[in-house]
Amino acid sequence: MAGNSFGTKFVLTTFGESHGVAIGGIIDGCPSNIKLDLNAIQEELNRRKPGQSKLVTQRKEADEVVFLSGIFEEKTLGTPIAFQILNTNYKPQDYDLLKDVFRPSHADFVYQKKHQHRDHRGGGRSSARETAARVVAGAIAKQAINPVEIKAYVSAVGEVSLSKKYNQLDLSLTETTAVRCPDLDMAKQMEQLILETKKRGDTVGGVVTCVIKNVPIGLGEPVFNRLEAQLAKAMLSINACKGFSLGSGFEGAKMFGSTHNDYYNEDGSTKTNFSGGIQGGISNGMDIYFEVAFKPVATLLQPQEMLTARGTLEIVKGKGRHDACVVPRAVPIVEAMAALVIADFIV
Amino acid sequence: MAGNSFGTKFVLTTFGESHGVAIGGIIDGCPSNIKLDLNAIQEELNRRKPGQSKLVTQRKEADEVVFLSGIFEEKTLGTPIAFQILNTNYKPQDYDLLKDVFRPSHADFVYQKKHQHRDHRGGGRSSARETAARVVAGAIAKQAINPVEIKAYVSAVGEVSLSKKYNQLDLSLTETTAVRCPDLDMAKQMEQLILETKKRGDTVGGVVTCVIKNVPIGLGEPVFNRLEAQLAKAMLSINACKGFSLGSGFEGAKMFGSTHNDYYNEDGSTKTNFSGGIQGGISNGMDIYFEVAFKPVATLLQPQEMLTARGTLEIVKGKGRHDACVVPRAVPIVEAMAALVIADFIV
Amino acid sequence: MAGNSFGTKFVLTTFGESHGVAIGGIIDGCPSNIKLDLNAIQEELNRRKPGQSKLVTQRKEADEVVFLSGIFEEKTLGTPIAFQILNTNYKPQDYDLLKDVFRPSHADFVYQKKHQHRDHRGGGRSSARETAARVVAGAIAKQAINPVEIKAYVSAVGEVSLSKKYNQLDLSLTETTAVRCPDLDMAKQMEQLILETKKRGDTVGGVVTCVIKNVPIGLGEPVFNRLEAQLAKAMLSINACKGFSLGSGFEGAKMFGSTHNDYYNEDGSTKTNFSGGIQGGISNGMDIYFEVAFKPVATLLQPQEMLTARGTLEIVKGKGRHDACVVPRAVPIVEAMAALVIADFIV
Amino acid sequence: MAGNSFGTKFVLTTFGESHGVAIGGIIDGCPSNIKLDLNAIQEELNRRKPGQSKLVTQRKEADEVVFLSGIFEEKTLGTPIAFQILNTNYKPQDYDLLKDVFRPSHADFVYQKKHQHRDHRGGGRSSARETAARVVAGAIAKQAINPVEIKAYVSAVGEVSLSKKYNQLDLSLTETTAVRCPDLDMAKQMEQLILETKKRGDTVGGVVTCVIKNVPIGLGEPVFNRLEAQLAKAMLSINACKGFSLGSGFEGAKMFGSTHNDYYNEDGSTKTNFSGGIQGGISNGMDIYFEVAFKPVATLLQPQEMLTARGTLEIVKGKGRHDACVVPRAVPIVEAMAALVIADFIV
Repeated sequence: MAGNSFGTKFVLTTFGESHGVAIGGIIDGCPSNIKLDLNAIQEELNRRKPGQSKLVTQRKEADEVVFLSGIFEEKTLGTPIAFQILNTNYKPQDYDLLKDVFRPSHADFVYQKKHQHRDHRGGGRSSARETAARVVAGAIAKQAINPVEIKAYVSAVGEVSLSKKYNQLDLSLTETTAVRCPDLDMAKQMEQLILETKKRGDTVGGVVTCVIKNVPIGLGEPVFNRLEAQLAKAMLSINACKGFSLGSGFEGAKMFGSTHNDYYNEDGSTKTNFSGGIQGGISNGMDIYFEVAFKPVATLLQPQEMLTARGTLEIVKGKGRHDACVVPRAVPIVEAMAALVIADFIV
Repeated sequence: MAGNSFGTKFVLTTFGESHGVAIGGIIDGCPSNIKLDLNAIQEELNRRKPGQSKLVTQRKEADEVVFLSGIFEEKTLGTPIAFQILNTNYKPQDYDLLKDVFRPSHADFVYQKKHQHRDHRGGGRSSARETAARVVAGAIAKQAINPVEIKAYVSAVGEVSLSKKYNQLDLSLTETTAVRCPDLDMAKQMEQLILETKKRGDTVGGVVTCVIKNVPIGLGEPVFNRLEAQLAKAMLSINACKGFSLGSGFEGAKMFGSTHNDYYNEDGSTKTNFSGGIQGGISNGMDIYFEVAFKPVATLLQPQEMLTARGTLEIVKGKGRHDACVVPRAVPIVEAMAALVIADFIV
Repeated sequence: MAGNSFGTKFVLTTFGESHGVAIGGIIDGCPSNIKLDLNAIQEELNRRKPGQSKLVTQRKEADEVVFLSGIFEEKTLGTPIAFQILNTNYKPQDYDLLKDVFRPSHADFVYQKKHQHRDHRGGGRSSARETAARVVAGAIAKQAINPVEIKAYVSAVGEVSLSKKYNQLDLSLTETTAVRCPDLDMAKQMEQLILETKKRGDTVGGVVTCVIKNVPIGLGEPVFNRLEAQLAKAMLSINACKGFSLGSGFEGAKMFGSTHNDYYNEDGSTKTNFSGGIQGGISNGMDIYFEVAFKPVATLLQPQEMLTARGTLEIVKGKGRHDACVVPRAVPIVEAMAALVIADFIV
Repeated sequence: MAGNSFGTKFVLTTFGESHGVAIGGIIDGCPSNIKLDLNAIQEELNRRKPGQSKLVTQRKEADEVVFLSGIFEEKTLGTPIAFQILNTNYKPQDYDLLKDVFRPSHADFVYQKKHQHRDHRGGGRSSARETAARVVAGAIAKQAINPVEIKAYVSAVGEVSLSKKYNQLDLSLTETTAVRCPDLDMAKQMEQLILETKKRGDTVGGVVTCVIKNVPIGLGEPVFNRLEAQLAKAMLSINACKGFSLGSGFEGAKMFGSTHNDYYNEDGSTKTNFSGGIQGGISNGMDIYFEVAFKPVATLLQPQEMLTARGTLEIVKGKGRHDACVVPRAVPIVEAMAALVIADFIV
């Protein structure tokens, strides 16, 4: 069954195994005549790229996006926008020992069971590399939905968690820290936790918070295509994502209605925003904000017990270049998926 | 934009305003020749029905499902299964005072802004009544996906929260309590909290946990149609839902990889199940379990400040018959949506 | 696999076996705030109804449409519009002898092979009765796409075929003839042919021509969702349809480019219209016109050889009340499907 | 609105302007573990390529397909198959004079009106070049649906039309003639007509007949997703296509039911096949056959009156390298689209 497309009006279809020739995608449904800043797209891709700081994997990927169609004289044509990123710096030999071995908490096992054939040289479609195509498409979506603005940041790494809410933070500081946390003190603690974890050959999870501003009233449909339902699907479609919460989220489940209700101002805005900018599946014009939980990366640079294709258990030491914490690089991916959701409702 | 269908192969489309003639739906894609237990469908609907206990609204709804097509000699024909439930016991006069008033944290305001026309006699499509159609379709899906088994229960009401995990509980006790919590001690505390809240004219949120057993390996697609992405979408499409977490969820974000990884047994099962039964978007044969957070119901039986269509604020006292806590009645809805997701991947 | 929905933005899903409780459908995606003339909808349904003249079957079907949702104070709500038509006047005993018999050129055989279970009391989903739901939805679509105007008529019955093109005819005369042909002389010949055919217990095929006026420029997408591709799909989805041709159609295949090209006037209209109002998949503002071929009805009121479930051949005499020629009643169905296509591109 | 995808389970999405960097596509939903003959794919592409004989344009296009993903060790992975064909031999200067001019019966005008921005260097998405991507995908579909066999041929060029039916012809001769007609005498007449037409700087239309053999019983859904409805959509989505007819087609509209009905043999096959292998939207196991009408190519190599962007009419002489008759090269395209339809129902 096909499953590599996202959206119904602004549709992204992606392709590419992590260790194949290239990854990329096609955007179908982008309106015509939008002036595109191609540098801004490459910059978003650079934010996702490995090797940006000592916190993340030092694997170098050129990750240059090339556009094949849909853009003429720097403006969209209204036709499909195809793009690709060559896989230039992979080391498939790192994966030779994984040919007949299933890593714990990886997709190797289920791929083999589902398809009876897989590209063992990396995660194939389940590799985080696939998200580069989302970032490219998201960067185009961001330009298509202007002036809607999307800003994500790291709000927790392991047990180190921000207590300040998004509106108590200066989000312009996010990109000034390697860990992409706008609270500079907490950023330091997070970075230290990641480095310690990395030293042990271990990995750690974290949380990304995302804020969407300037949303017009009326996006989303009641019932199944609620705006929050699409956002939840978008986020849970990101590798390693384990949870999504909108507005008050799981905290809201503990509250009473008399506190949780967002009372109106006379202009239709609300005094509080526990709802997270969405009522009955439809944007109400207030900020949309949500949290996305990521589990720790499954690839550890320490010996682990693995299952072989022969049905035995073996201790194997992971090789390769992997992040000790995925959340700093997840920030642009969360933004990209949010932009794709909004674009799908707006265009 | 259309938004009232769920699924791509086993597709449910629903219709109906809460105070119109009827609600109902069409299931398209149900395989032929499935023997249906029609009583079991009605029983699921009864679980969702108002007025079942003193905990929930005493509003009586007959809620009898009538099938119009797709079933012949008690077996599915492979053709669309249409069904309807008449709206017999509504009191539209309860809503007369709401004609030009927008209730806080309700969808009235955004509906009016989006459509410039709405059925003010209740929530229209955003009413929880709409979920009755989901329960009917879910009950059919449950029969179509046999022997997959889906069991949900209330794991938190307000601050009263179970510390036991699903596999430490006897889920056969769930339906023996009014609050649908299989931990009988905690059930009592939850019920007490709901009754106190109700007495104050207030409401309180809660959490539903859902477990899916006997799932075949291989359901779900990598990338956008991951099994967890569809589950998240399904849950966030339920009224009042504010969050979804799979397996370790937000707790997993605090963990280290060396603890979080689910190591294999020789038969391909895993020793732990932080993953929640899904790897890389695909079921791995272990139990799938997830939590769903619900905010407190927005309708309070106490005076609240509301926005009028004229742009003024007025104190209005809510009328009507509404639940003080939605989660006991949300249990069958969560199960129904989970069944629809699984059916869509299995058929 | 689901297959009972049509459209992507203005979506019709239909249900109902010909001899079940009811047939009907749900329209999802109809814009809000459209004032609906409910009588006009019933009138369209009356045009399709059996028993209107001596030319067509004398079977009486009340065929009254009842709306269940989506309309409030005679205006659309933007929510799903559900409707149903009860099956009141069927005589299932007419079909008893068909329980284990497959009629030639009917769908009985393939249904049984595909589903291993069927409602033998009539054609089930393959019955022409199913098209009543399309006519209701088409009547709503017609109102939603105003001022686009859709007019179909019978242009051939058997060998009796109009030589005049649509723009040489007074289409306001169509409904004044029993056969729905605006050329009154030809109409008489057609009617005579149908009556003679009926007397013999035989049936005869025919052609419906459809014209769409006042189409805005720009409907349709290049490549797969061309306007003509959707029209072709729509028409070939009607029972007994064997062919579709746009503009010059199969005659165009015989022509030279120097004759076939439609040269422009200065205002962007064209001097000729061999293209049939569509260029590169997109409407160009000229009239869209196309022809739809229908085979003769398969049910004959004379003895025919049939296949039994036991694999033997038997002579059986058809019973029941069936048309000798389907095209007069196909006229409103062709219009309805055309309206659904246009609505899907316009809304 | 997106419109560049075809299919729901075996989905092709294409991209590329005729004079951009490349054209290509992504196939999503191709089952895993299918051994692919890559040469056979390139050979299909060669059949569509310009410059194969004196009958067709002498424009040389390398047209080499490159696969970027989805294939590993010559077997499909079950992941998206991305491919591209570079545009190497275009001469955009041929089109400079068309920048502000709309050619008759071309899509230039409607593209400009719809998108307010277009790639004037050729037909953009409406160019026949786009069909190369369909041929690649169709070649993969052919291998995926084995042993279903699809054979198309030219059955008419202008007024030169075969009277023999497909089952009176030796279809293995099709590719031995430049015009792709298996009736060698008629092939000569067709070729002569094309050459005379070409000499005059004119173009001529034609008809392609397609036969699908070894079709399993049960493909297709009743109502909207009938097999013939998808075939009609597929064919009408090909550039220059003006008509589709299945089995008896427009001739069937002239017939009586007593002649047209296909009576059964005891094994469930039928004695005649006016139905064209489909009953009630579902394949019945007999050969599927249909005709596709193509209009004459709109680009003439003679002076023609064109509309300018300023709203004036001017005589312009077409340049470039274009076919005098499209049907010989349409044969592999018709086969490809048929293969995509069958694959979508089979996988």
